[in-house]
Amino acid sequence: MEKIMIFGHKNPDTDSITSSLVMENLEKKLGNEGARAYKLGEINKETEFALNYFNVTEPETLEGIEEKAKVILVDHNDFAQSIEGIEKAEIIKVIDHHAVGGFKTTSPLYYLAEPVGCTETIIYELYKKNNIEIDKKIAGIMVSAIISDTLLFKSPTCTEKDVQVANELAKIAEINLNTYGMELLKAGTNLSDFTSEEMINIDSKLSTANNVNIQVSQVNTACIEDVLKKQCEIEQAINDFIDKNNIDIFVLLITDIINSNSEAIILGKRSDIAEKAFGKTIDNNRMFLEGVVSRKKQVFPILMENA
Amino acid sequence: MEKIMIFGHKNPDTDSITSSLVMENLEKKLGNEGARAYKLGEINKETEFALNYFNVTEPETLEGIEEKAKVILVDHNDFAQSIEGIEKAEIIKVIDHHAVGGFKTTSPLYYLAEPVGCTETIIYELYKKNNIEIDKKIAGIMVSAIISDTLLFKSPTCTEKDVQVANELAKIAEINLNTYGMELLKAGTNLSDFTSEEMINIDSKLSTANNVNIQVSQVNTACIEDVLKKQCEIEQAINDFIDKNNIDIFVLLITDIINSNSEAIILGKRSDIAEKAFGKTIDNNRMFLEGVVSRKKQVFPILMENA
Repeated sequence: MEKIMIFGHKNPDTDSITSSLVMENLEKKLGNEGARAYKLGEINKETEFALNYFNVTEPETLEGIEEKAKVILVDHNDFAQSIEGIEKAEIIKVIDHHAVGGFKTTSPLYYLAEPVGCTETIIYELYKKNNIEIDKKIAGIMVSAIISDTLLFKSPTCTEKDVQVANELAKIAEINLNTYGMELLKAGTNLSDFTSEEMINIDSKLSTANNVNIQVSQVNTACIEDVLKKQCEIEQAINDFIDKNNIDIFVLLITDIINSNSEAIILGKRSDIAEKAFGKTIDNNRMFLEGVVSRKKQVFPILMENA
Repeated sequence: MEKIMIFGHKNPDTDSITSSLVMENLEKKLGNEGARAYKLGEINKETEFALNYFNVTEPETLEGIEEKAKVILVDHNDFAQSIEGIEKAEIIKVIDHHAVGGFKTTSPLYYLAEPVGCTETIIYELYKKNNIEIDKKIAGIMVSAIISDTLLFKSPTCTEKDVQVANELAKIAEINLNTYGMELLKAGTNLSDFTSEEMINIDSKLSTANNVNIQVSQVNTACIEDVLKKQCEIEQAINDFIDKNNIDIFVLLITDIINSNSEAIILGKRSDIAEKAFGKTIDNNRMFLEGVVSRKKQVFPILMENA
């Protein structure tokens, strides 16, 4: 029985956790009994809500990886967002919906990426293609990830396909998309248990362009002002992170899931990149980004192009 | 009408040329009227045979590429094997069957790679998935590419899926796989019109590992001895290429398509890599590689690991 390790990115979100679990389910149904989901960090409150709701156990944490270990990457491909030592593993599959981050393999592999809102939308097609039925629990965590990644279809990353697949899955999972969706998103906005240091790490990603290290974190909230009450403390945590990790520009997106806007806290010696990118000035280390909710589509590309 | 440029790698082989033409056909049937196939170099004799046989016109040569041009890459992903300026284009799709070469995009894209013998095997599935019929001409050039890339199913890169798809296509194209296949491969072994310099460029690929530039060219023949008659002249051409392009190790695979072996001519200041990789010594600048016919599976990975 060949061992296959399946995992998403560091600082896992609902898509990374559930896609690992769902791919384990699919691989096992395809006869790969040794497939097993892992996580690369603690699950967040939104993911916890989804797993509890559908009575699914979270995956174990992967602490390290052996050379030549067989691996399936979901919801990421950039080695900077993966486990340390990933370059020595044998990546046999990638299922993803992000830009290609410059990773390199010595052998051909199965790589499927589509510009859709959520990895689960792609995995849904793999179930269909292989004529494998999706059970209620699996459908439930899949649709949760689509709701999460698309902010209940409001994000510009959301495609027609995401909406269509989410509706199919909602039927199997026996949920009302709007009611369950708002409950799920709200579960992720409860930031009261987090220190500022933890908060900027809940969902944080690094990309590099022209040797500029760009870190963009995102938190969801129903009230931006509530989060800004701790601005001073948050800035301290960001500056510590910048020093420790050699970051040139750090952007914290505080995203209002009700009105679909973001307030950004921007720090770092290259914060001028954000001013150039968005054509606005930073005031009190902040910038209001109207209609911006997607880091992947509305923030990373424009920062990288201006780096 | 949005212009979409479709092309395969430099020094195009039958797969790169036909996959571009076939993807143009598929994209148009999907409603993308502006899709157009191009080539990044002259077609070889094998490809010429296939296009003539099925009465298909070869694509135009692409001389340069504009910034932000929309592009579909087939049969390659490594920028080193693509057109100059590719990093400034907008790559919207990649359909490939090679290792991932470290390319980078700023936006999500459609990327489909599978570890099969030929790009056409993957494109065949896209026709099926979209319920689009494949006509005789298209089937003919598709099956030609599968025969070419798998050396009529003898290469270790050949999968069950390649064989199955080739058989389906052969029916539509109304050919006998073995008869047509041997004719096609033999058309590619006629090296009489080439100077040594041209010969080492017919099908040549560069990969880099640990800052070592590894160039591997391949020619097919029905008689290795015939090719070796010109060894002295070929070595001169290789040494010129090495100087001009800063190559550390150059391997010319002279592949016997009848017996499925290769004689390699190996030159360059890092030719020790080949000795380490294959566990044999180089004699008279040559090494016999029993059972080796696939650059992708049997040569590049092992050279890169030992670089």
